[in-house]
Amino acid sequence: MNFVDRLDEAASRNGSLLCVGLDPDPALMPEGVGVLDFSRAIVDATADLVCAYKLNLAFYEALEEEGFEALKGTVRHISGGIPVIGDAKRGDIGNTARAYARSLFDNLGFDAVTVSPYLGRDSLEPFLEYEDRGVFILCRTSNPGAVDFQSLICEADGRRPLFQVVADKAEQWNEHGNIGLVVGATYPEELRTIRQEHPDLPLLIPGIGAQGGELSLAVRYGVDRHGRRAIINSSRQVIFASSGKDFAEAARRAAIALRDQMRQACP
Amino acid sequence: MNFVDRLDEAASRNGSLLCVGLDPDPALMPEGVGVLDFSRAIVDATADLVCAYKLNLAFYEALEEEGFEALKGTVRHISGGIPVIGDAKRGDIGNTARAYARSLFDNLGFDAVTVSPYLGRDSLEPFLEYEDRGVFILCRTSNPGAVDFQSLICEADGRRPLFQVVADKAEQWNEHGNIGLVVGATYPEELRTIRQEHPDLPLLIPGIGAQGGELSLAVRYGVDRHGRRAIINSSRQVIFASSGKDFAEAARRAAIALRDQMRQACP
Repeated sequence: MNFVDRLDEAASRNGSLLCVGLDPDPALMPEGVGVLDFSRAIVDATADLVCAYKLNLAFYEALEEEGFEALKGTVRHISGGIPVIGDAKRGDIGNTARAYARSLFDNLGFDAVTVSPYLGRDSLEPFLEYEDRGVFILCRTSNPGAVDFQSLICEADGRRPLFQVVADKAEQWNEHGNIGLVVGATYPEELRTIRQEHPDLPLLIPGIGAQGGELSLAVRYGVDRHGRRAIINSSRQVIFASSGKDFAEAARRAAIALRDQMRQACP
Repeated sequence: MNFVDRLDEAASRNGSLLCVGLDPDPALMPEGVGVLDFSRAIVDATADLVCAYKLNLAFYEALEEEGFEALKGTVRHISGGIPVIGDAKRGDIGNTARAYARSLFDNLGFDAVTVSPYLGRDSLEPFLEYEDRGVFILCRTSNPGAVDFQSLICEADGRRPLFQVVADKAEQWNEHGNIGLVVGATYPEELRTIRQEHPDLPLLIPGIGAQGGELSLAVRYGVDRHGRRAIINSSRQVIFASSGKDFAEAARRAAIALRDQMRQACP
């Protein structure tokens, strides 16, 4: 089954647009809990509430050997057909991109990854060739600096901001039907534009909660005409809902609340 | 001492613009040699011939635990003040970028890293805050797909291609004097333009050899007015000069030849 079908199925089965982001920052984690145990406990507490998980590689890499083991162990631990996205934002030339793709898809076993578009099509090909995996191309990121380059007006099929040109190219390059886009909830108008212009692409939407994006707009502007294909990520609000021993139960409560708010916001 | 001074000193001491790129691809490595032993042997054979080393993280990551150990061991093994560049091309939002910066600078001990500009200034800040480390921002990459976005004409101080806008911003953001640019030798005219417009920035120049960039143009267009600050990378041509037991001696011979060609090409 291809990635988009797996995503649709998980979202439909759990009735959820929520993607729980695993960003295990030791400064915010409950004391005395290892990163693998932490990640597994969050997964166990939320597996029936999500359409996907997103693992942020930076936080695992920062923990060296322990983090590397936890990364592998967490991906393996997620079962039941829930897609697991490796948030790696890689982007490099051909033979290097191939090594990253092998690492993320073959070794670590991710169902999808995030990639950066700056190097162009041939830097994405090694990922896209894994036809059953998803490839989310950074389009409009959720951070303030997104405006520095992504908003530049470019001469391409008329005058269009760079992030829209990236989305146009992504659509053109989507021969295997495995491309999605990353569009931040912190830019709702841009999200709306991207969804209007690309009615079928899965959108990975970070930025609600701590970053200030509004959940209801992320849902309303992010979903396709069937109310699907918006993968709305929440990391800190769920996984650090409590810093005590009840962190997993607190994560479950937070995930239920978010799932329900997303359902209500769905047009 | 800051990064640029360390770079100038190493280049001057070894009389070399050559950066040896460590891309340990198991398919091309001599049989029966582990990746740490391979990397250390290449370093031992070339340490008096280079201005820097560049480690390509993708190839180490693809080797999982062994690769991770080799990455750390190789950085530690490089001594004598030769700068070590972590070619990671990371780019992510604030708290994630901080985790990557910690991982690359604090844990792994790189003197400099490569980063992707697509997410804008705040995604680079966590790296730039390490004032004694170098930060090479992707500007014009060496691959064919570089044209897809980097050549787009943007409205920014007139009409300028995106890669020049990136370079302009890099110069503006260079408060700590620790920014450099990545400009591929496969685009000599673009390299010449960037050097003319940014006379003092260190340029990391991949793309000679296997990728087809011409060494003499990379030198001529890449150096500053003192014949410095062009870090001209060669990976495969040096490290895979022989696939036999004599790989280290062959790497040394290849590095000497390249260093000498670069000297001769220096205007």
